[in-house]
Amino acid sequence: MIAALAARMPAGPHTSVGIGDDAAVVEAPSGSVVATVDLVLEGRHFLRSWSSAYDIGVKGAARSLADVAAMGAVPTALLVALAMPGTLPASWALELADGLAFEARRAGAGVVGGDTARADSVLLSVTGLGDLGGRPPVRRSGASPGDVVAVAGPLGYSAAGYALLTAGATACPELAAAHRRPAPPYEAGPEAALLGATAMIDVSDGLVADLGHVAEASGVAIDIESARLAVGGPLAEAAAVVSGAGTPPSRTDPPGSPASLALEWALTGGEDHSLAATFPPAVTLPPRWRVIGSVHAGTGVTVDGQPYQGSGGWEHFSR
Amino acid sequence: MIAALAARMPAGPHTSVGIGDDAAVVEAPSGSVVATVDLVLEGRHFLRSWSSAYDIGVKGAARSLADVAAMGAVPTALLVALAMPGTLPASWALELADGLAFEARRAGAGVVGGDTARADSVLLSVTGLGDLGGRPPVRRSGASPGDVVAVAGPLGYSAAGYALLTAGATACPELAAAHRRPAPPYEAGPEAALLGATAMIDVSDGLVADLGHVAEASGVAIDIESARLAVGGPLAEAAAVVSGAGTPPSRTDPPGSPASLALEWALTGGEDHSLAATFPPAVTLPPRWRVIGSVHAGTGVTVDGQPYQGSGGWEHFSR
Repeated sequence: MIAALAARMPAGPHTSVGIGDDAAVVEAPSGSVVATVDLVLEGRHFLRSWSSAYDIGVKGAARSLADVAAMGAVPTALLVALAMPGTLPASWALELADGLAFEARRAGAGVVGGDTARADSVLLSVTGLGDLGGRPPVRRSGASPGDVVAVAGPLGYSAAGYALLTAGATACPELAAAHRRPAPPYEAGPEAALLGATAMIDVSDGLVADLGHVAEASGVAIDIESARLAVGGPLAEAAAVVSGAGTPPSRTDPPGSPASLALEWALTGGEDHSLAATFPPAVTLPPRWRVIGSVHAGTGVTVDGQPYQGSGGWEHFSR
Repeated sequence: MIAALAARMPAGPHTSVGIGDDAAVVEAPSGSVVATVDLVLEGRHFLRSWSSAYDIGVKGAARSLADVAAMGAVPTALLVALAMPGTLPASWALELADGLAFEARRAGAGVVGGDTARADSVLLSVTGLGDLGGRPPVRRSGASPGDVVAVAGPLGYSAAGYALLTAGATACPELAAAHRRPAPPYEAGPEAALLGATAMIDVSDGLVADLGHVAEASGVAIDIESARLAVGGPLAEAAAVVSGAGTPPSRTDPPGSPASLALEWALTGGEDHSLAATFPPAVTLPPRWRVIGSVHAGTGVTVDGQPYQGSGGWEHFSR
């Protein structure tokens, strides 16, 4: 079984010793290694009724790889610990491995180690490693008043997909897909570092919550301009479906309307694993970095200058 | 809670960015990093009735750190994912953190990242990182005929302690302690590399099983001399207690006797996380490396020239 799992994993271009010894050896050409670990649990981050084993593998890899990218690093390797019920067939684990392998390949990382065990429910612990290419890490603490706040990747897609799946709706399949298989823009992490990003974070808990971490670590205030969030298109369509309204909402709808629902997804929906970063105002950003706010003296996160009244971030659905 | 856990963890001398950002940054002065992940599960690797939270923390750290040392590397960092029932008090997690921190400090490693979640039983996933100091890794595949086989650290102590705990015996408390808190000789790993070890492995599944991995990877045969295993002392005493005999066994006892039980623990008891290595015969070994066998042309592992008839290795107690 372990051999079958290992055979599906990419060795990766940075791997000196891969799966099969007491430990792996991964190149760290910068003389340092970026490292993070994330848990992905059944009932909290996914439901087996909604997510295939392949989806769960993708999601497990994406969570850690996005954290690596959010430091400005290039992902180099993953190590995966998988606990699962003995009642699941071996093919289920192999499908999960295929999802992990796909996402690792997409990020350019090898899968260099792992461990497996039985448990009552599926639990995945994924360690991500990366290399900074000689650059300093982009931490949460470097934002300064005057910086702009920009995001690479979608906001609210995973939350909207989750809401559609909960409602049993089949509209906007790309949103359900975004919930099942987040696709973080890994290359945007090192790109932001090269562009001079002063702070960066992976949007895993929701934009307001995660920018709150940046604001706190940096000792600054951050204001989000809601008009700059892309809450039209599929988010608006999904909000209309979920709200039971037949037509996409307009911006002037009152709270509780589809428009406010779409905005709430964008502000508080987590698990998209998009990247949010702050940049000095003079930086010319490539198109995938969309400016959505600004950094000021003070504390906390506001939306259009006002305290945000919605929920503070993505509440995992088991809570 | 996470802040309270983080505050108990050693930063470590190799940590550039520790707990609190998207990912940690750990020095990798050799330009590569050794990395491994291990699961430690309730019911499989420990029982909460026998092991304190502190013990479980020590054991979780030791498993990964020993793998790092077995490559010839100096441990630099741990990342820890902990899932536990919501019914356990916060103090339980803090005690586990103290055990992890103790063992990480003993190995010279920082605890640089983590994740926590709720689950039905306790599950710990520990990633260990290390640095090779510019040396090539000591793999399982380098043993050659003519090499000697040596071990640093005890053999069978954890299995004997487990047997004593199962029997409800209070004799030889150092063996029960060895089961609860393995204390791998981490420094012996880089030491072996400096001495010219040709292959090395962490004895986690049992000596016969783990030397079997070395024999297979190296394409050689390995013979263990039972007379060189230290099955007197506490192992003999424990075997006598567990066998219900009142006196320590002698070497001439027949199979099924306390002496054969002590030998079985030494040959197949796992989880001591001692290190087994092969060395060219001309190497002068420091005292903590005890020669226990030799490498030959052929395949497989023998004991005193005979196929070993006991169980192939440590069977985790849930099986």
